Amino acid sequence: MNYSKLVEQIFAKKSFLCVGLDVDGDKIPQCLVDANPKCDVTDLVLHYACDIIDATAPYAVAYKPNLAFYERYGSRGLAVLEEIVTYIKKNHPEILVIADAKRGDIGNTATQYAKAIFGNLKADAVTLNPYMGYDSVKPFLTYHDVARDATCWSVILALTSNPGGLDFQMIKDNFGVPLYQQVLATTSGWKESSFENTMYVVGATRAEMLTEIRKIVPRHFLLVPGIGAQGGSLEDVAKFGMTPDCGLLVNSSRGIIYASKDADYAEAAGAAAQKLQKQMAELLPKR
Amino acid sequence: MNYSKLVEQIFAKKSFLCVGLDVDGDKIPQCLVDANPKCDVTDLVLHYACDIIDATAPYAVAYKPNLAFYERYGSRGLAVLEEIVTYIKKNHPEILVIADAKRGDIGNTATQYAKAIFGNLKADAVTLNPYMGYDSVKPFLTYHDVARDATCWSVILALTSNPGGLDFQMIKDNFGVPLYQQVLATTSGWKESSFENTMYVVGATRAEMLTEIRKIVPRHFLLVPGIGAQGGSLEDVAKFGMTPDCGLLVNSSRGIIYASKDADYAEAAGAAAQKLQKQMAELLPKR
Repeated sequence: MNYSKLVEQIFAKKSFLCVGLDVDGDKIPQCLVDANPKCDVTDLVLHYACDIIDATAPYAVAYKPNLAFYERYGSRGLAVLEEIVTYIKKNHPEILVIADAKRGDIGNTATQYAKAIFGNLKADAVTLNPYMGYDSVKPFLTYHDVARDATCWSVILALTSNPGGLDFQMIKDNFGVPLYQQVLATTSGWKESSFENTMYVVGATRAEMLTEIRKIVPRHFLLVPGIGAQGGSLEDVAKFGMTPDCGLLVNSSRGIIYASKDADYAEAAGAAAQKLQKQMAELLPKR
Repeated sequence: MNYSKLVEQIFAKKSFLCVGLDVDGDKIPQCLVDANPKCDVTDLVLHYACDIIDATAPYAVAYKPNLAFYERYGSRGLAVLEEIVTYIKKNHPEILVIADAKRGDIGNTATQYAKAIFGNLKADAVTLNPYMGYDSVKPFLTYHDVARDATCWSVILALTSNPGGLDFQMIKDNFGVPLYQQVLATTSGWKESSFENTMYVVGATRAEMLTEIRKIVPRHFLLVPGIGAQGGSLEDVAKFGMTPDCGLLVNSSRGIIYASKDADYAEAAGAAAQKLQKQMAELLPKR
């Protein structure tokens, strides 16, 4: 999905919601377990995820499965994730799929990861860790899938919302520029990179820093986790981070997919997503 | 495998060689393809890897499969990697298996990755990216597998051997300390971390920096890629980086596993590994 199509979807759905599909096999509702006695946990993860997808699709413009929750079950878990992406592409093709993988490795290895994520899994976007620099990101920026002829997005970690995000990302150089800002400035300057194929992860718990961030990357989409459970404010993120094209994908995982532990988990997820979507509709620029 | 057992293996085999099992499905020798007309590429990767393992096992103390080369083929590729690890554990249980995954994510996600790598794949060690800080590494440091009762090693990226390694890792703070040294100092100071459960990735192409590195982490094992194809010198690495317990695992991937493109690929790999092992025997401290 290219930049203009993504913007179009956001204004059509009046939503910049990304739903984090971090389905934890240990948190499957007991009613679902009881109703499917012959299913193993990975079958139940698939079942649960597809229910969540159908309930939230009207309110979401992106899904972000985190690969860890599937890799935990090894090759069978990865097969379930492949089925989930196929399910989204078949039933909700207008929704961006972001593989939250946080990969990063030397050039020839990064090329293999690009094939894994874009070629095999067929995600539209992948989160990347910038620590290893240019040649670890370039294979994702230059990947082109002839069969799809669609943008393959790189979503680079800049400032993360977890406590440990402060350990290294805030270290300042002798000009007083923190590492995360150097990551933004350096990576957005790479010739293969632009706002049309690159996004950045910026945690909502650091919303006040969005003003500085927008000075460096005025047009790039920002993928913003940390709303809700982690304490970030949607209003602050929109106030400091929004662009005329929106420029934001705000993620919620646990607040949506675990909105209820009972048989109404899908309806509850849909209601939680709709609630966020309504708030987002108010915050979007008028068109 | 715990620290003392690893040191014991190194002096028993007179080797600190780690063989990188980055088996590229596009580089399978034609003779192997022709001899197995019913096999798909992942079957051939498995076949090739097991041949390489058997040929090199007498000379190696560690194997390091990079997950990208298997994930490229999705769930089927990951299943092959699971078979490879099982094969090593069954036939060469004295050899450390390092999952080269370069993972790093927020705490509850990192917990899932730890289950994936240590619990499901049953690797002994995993490479980790420190960009997201303490809570992204802690779940690996504190993982304990009751069934195995063995050390689960975290191998943290410090200074990588690729060109992009210079983009951010060398950025100096206002005291002149480069980021990679801050990573070493901070992570080695975490209370869950010690030389008995943590190693660091330091590229051989930066061997002259090992002197500074040893001031910060005098006893930790260093996993050193970049020998051979990437231009690093084994002698320099030993000169500047070796400890009384060796403290080094030097990796070679392409120089061993692609030593020949013909039917003698396994023998050639064994010979290449033996050649390095003989050099290493000369460099080890006398015991």
